[in-house]
Amino acid sequence: MSESQPASWVPGAAGSGYGVHHLPYGVFRVGDDEPRIGVRVGDLVLDLAGAEAADLVLAGGALCRPTLNAFLALGRPQWTAVRDRITELLTDPTHRAAVEPLLVPVDEVRMELPFEVADYVDFYSSEHHASNVGLIFRPGQPPLLPNWKHLPIGYHGRAGTVVVSGTPVVRPQGQRPSSDGPTFGPSARLDIEAEVGFVVGVPSPLGRRVAAADFADHVFGVVLVNDWSARDIQAWEYQPLGPFLGKSFATSVAAWVTPLDALRDAFVAGPAQDPPVADYLRDEPHQGLDLRLKVLWNGEPVSEPPFADMYWTPAQQLAHLTVNGASLRTGDLYASGTVSGPRRDQVGSFLELSWGGTEPVSVGGTERTFLADGDTVTITATAPGPDGTTLTLGEVTGTVLPAN
Amino acid sequence: MSESQPASWVPGAAGSGYGVHHLPYGVFRVGDDEPRIGVRVGDLVLDLAGAEAADLVLAGGALCRPTLNAFLALGRPQWTAVRDRITELLTDPTHRAAVEPLLVPVDEVRMELPFEVADYVDFYSSEHHASNVGLIFRPGQPPLLPNWKHLPIGYHGRAGTVVVSGTPVVRPQGQRPSSDGPTFGPSARLDIEAEVGFVVGVPSPLGRRVAAADFADHVFGVVLVNDWSARDIQAWEYQPLGPFLGKSFATSVAAWVTPLDALRDAFVAGPAQDPPVADYLRDEPHQGLDLRLKVLWNGEPVSEPPFADMYWTPAQQLAHLTVNGASLRTGDLYASGTVSGPRRDQVGSFLELSWGGTEPVSVGGTERTFLADGDTVTITATAPGPDGTTLTLGEVTGTVLPAN
Repeated sequence: MSESQPASWVPGAAGSGYGVHHLPYGVFRVGDDEPRIGVRVGDLVLDLAGAEAADLVLAGGALCRPTLNAFLALGRPQWTAVRDRITELLTDPTHRAAVEPLLVPVDEVRMELPFEVADYVDFYSSEHHASNVGLIFRPGQPPLLPNWKHLPIGYHGRAGTVVVSGTPVVRPQGQRPSSDGPTFGPSARLDIEAEVGFVVGVPSPLGRRVAAADFADHVFGVVLVNDWSARDIQAWEYQPLGPFLGKSFATSVAAWVTPLDALRDAFVAGPAQDPPVADYLRDEPHQGLDLRLKVLWNGEPVSEPPFADMYWTPAQQLAHLTVNGASLRTGDLYASGTVSGPRRDQVGSFLELSWGGTEPVSVGGTERTFLADGDTVTITATAPGPDGTTLTLGEVTGTVLPAN
Repeated sequence: MSESQPASWVPGAAGSGYGVHHLPYGVFRVGDDEPRIGVRVGDLVLDLAGAEAADLVLAGGALCRPTLNAFLALGRPQWTAVRDRITELLTDPTHRAAVEPLLVPVDEVRMELPFEVADYVDFYSSEHHASNVGLIFRPGQPPLLPNWKHLPIGYHGRAGTVVVSGTPVVRPQGQRPSSDGPTFGPSARLDIEAEVGFVVGVPSPLGRRVAAADFADHVFGVVLVNDWSARDIQAWEYQPLGPFLGKSFATSVAAWVTPLDALRDAFVAGPAQDPPVADYLRDEPHQGLDLRLKVLWNGEPVSEPPFADMYWTPAQQLAHLTVNGASLRTGDLYASGTVSGPRRDQVGSFLELSWGGTEPVSVGGTERTFLADGDTVTITATAPGPDGTTLTLGEVTGTVLPAN
């Protein structure tokens, strides 16, 4: 460990994906207690409500709330100050006696949705994913539509059905297309979308756009997202106004929000963009995030989507989202869209993995295309941290329950 | 007045669109005071926070909040009980001395957004509107897409940019299509959509659908909506995931929410539906609402859209919205989609009024297609009430400001 990253006195923290270089925030419960804000270190959760109540960390009471929203609203100088103070508490042994009683084993807590979602926007910013979808649904035509390289395509999803990792997902019912017209029943093409979500802390006023350069002033951090999708419902309903019930039944997010401050070593040059983008979409530096995702289907790794080469960067997505004057609110969540790399073992959806359901894959010895009842999907990710460390992002997992 | 509808002692209430047969709810401020819940009667606002504080009406404190949400969450028996009590207070002269000090002239208050919007969904349920859009954008092809008569097409909009009537609307900027590729600048095709919105009070759990028959258990009431739309931005961005920035800059709602209880005499048989709808979309009785809208462009009436013959009813929209197991939250708002009748002077958008911008209309002596800076659009509506009375719904108005 270099001087810039002192070691933690917390047993097991150093060398794990949850050392003091990471410190993701979440909301936890112990038994029937009220939800409390905590930060993860090693296999423990530091009770920040308790820490603020004991004046060990000061955030104007924002850490004594049942969600992260009040803390998210504080803004970057306070986010960084609180992070610095937590780092001090967890590294300086003189604080050990005061802090140790506030540490709870992570396997003794139940995690809650970390923040109240204001608006949820879903982008579509992986060129590989968008091209694959084009090839599957419009064979013989140019895989990307004419607008795709001019703007980050996106749409609004349902904020009220964003659920925390671990929440079961009931198979949705709806109208599914057939050659004889639509039939009603459970989705037969239930899929995942492995995505990365960005959590907005600082709001912006209506009528004023947010510049790409102001990304880090507004965005607090990152969560993994599984944007569950019913491909049959979506295929029948989506013209002309886009996805609706094919997506709105559930969107899972990780329980732990990784602050941007922990990802300083994960920023990498974004991909070249041709044609040149409109002025409002220019971000300098033009940077993506080197997050390495992994998709596990019933525990079996089936794909490793790379986030680093997403065509549109999160700063560009933010600039686009607000260029029409749309305001931001604390708790807004925008997701990247399905993360897919160039290879079949790097795709972020089973639509692509099974090539539209035509090429089954072997999972646990059985042939699969889309999700069966009882299946569990877990998305994990790592990111490079300082001094050769690695961050383990909070995973997002969910199990499919039969239709009601 | 029949016995069922006693006259109010409030001067000017009887015979107005805001008699005791109506009693819409809103949130008002006087000067710098905190926002308070009120109900409109004649040209006065009854301060319900004051009434609850004085024990004149009991709602568990829900009327002493800065938005209607807590009241909306109470459910139909309490909504009706509070309405009955307010009716009693405003009709029985023995209450006059206690109530009169709580009445504020409506022109001395400033109205706020009446409820905090949870999720905002926009449907597309007028057959005339959808057909007109098809004819304008896909001439020579069937005007309705194959799915349109099988399900109420809808999508999620931006809840955070729902604003109260009277809020100015800044002309959005964005990418507009041209033969040489997209150009950036202010929308040149800024439009309105005259709609009717439904306000959800009682939530529903994730994974369970809401039956059409349970519409009145969940939906509290109705607001007029103007879903401002930038047609050029929308045209370029909307494939394949639907409208995004072309809609998300502002959606205006009326300041007054008309309870369903006030609309009992406005329900009328819905239109015949062919082909027959899926079981989950069957509503018995199959009823629309006889709301008669009017669109005023700079004060000049340009259209009178009839709501009664909307193809999909609000109960069907609710059943569809939740059939995949999506939960409802208090404050969810779903809008009907643009209300258009069969005639050109009954359309709810200027896209249709000017037939895609090709047939200018005369407004105040000038030729117009889409909105100019400084233009004001006001949408009003009436509905039949009991005993031959008429309700005047709260209007929704907004003025266009130049792009920033």
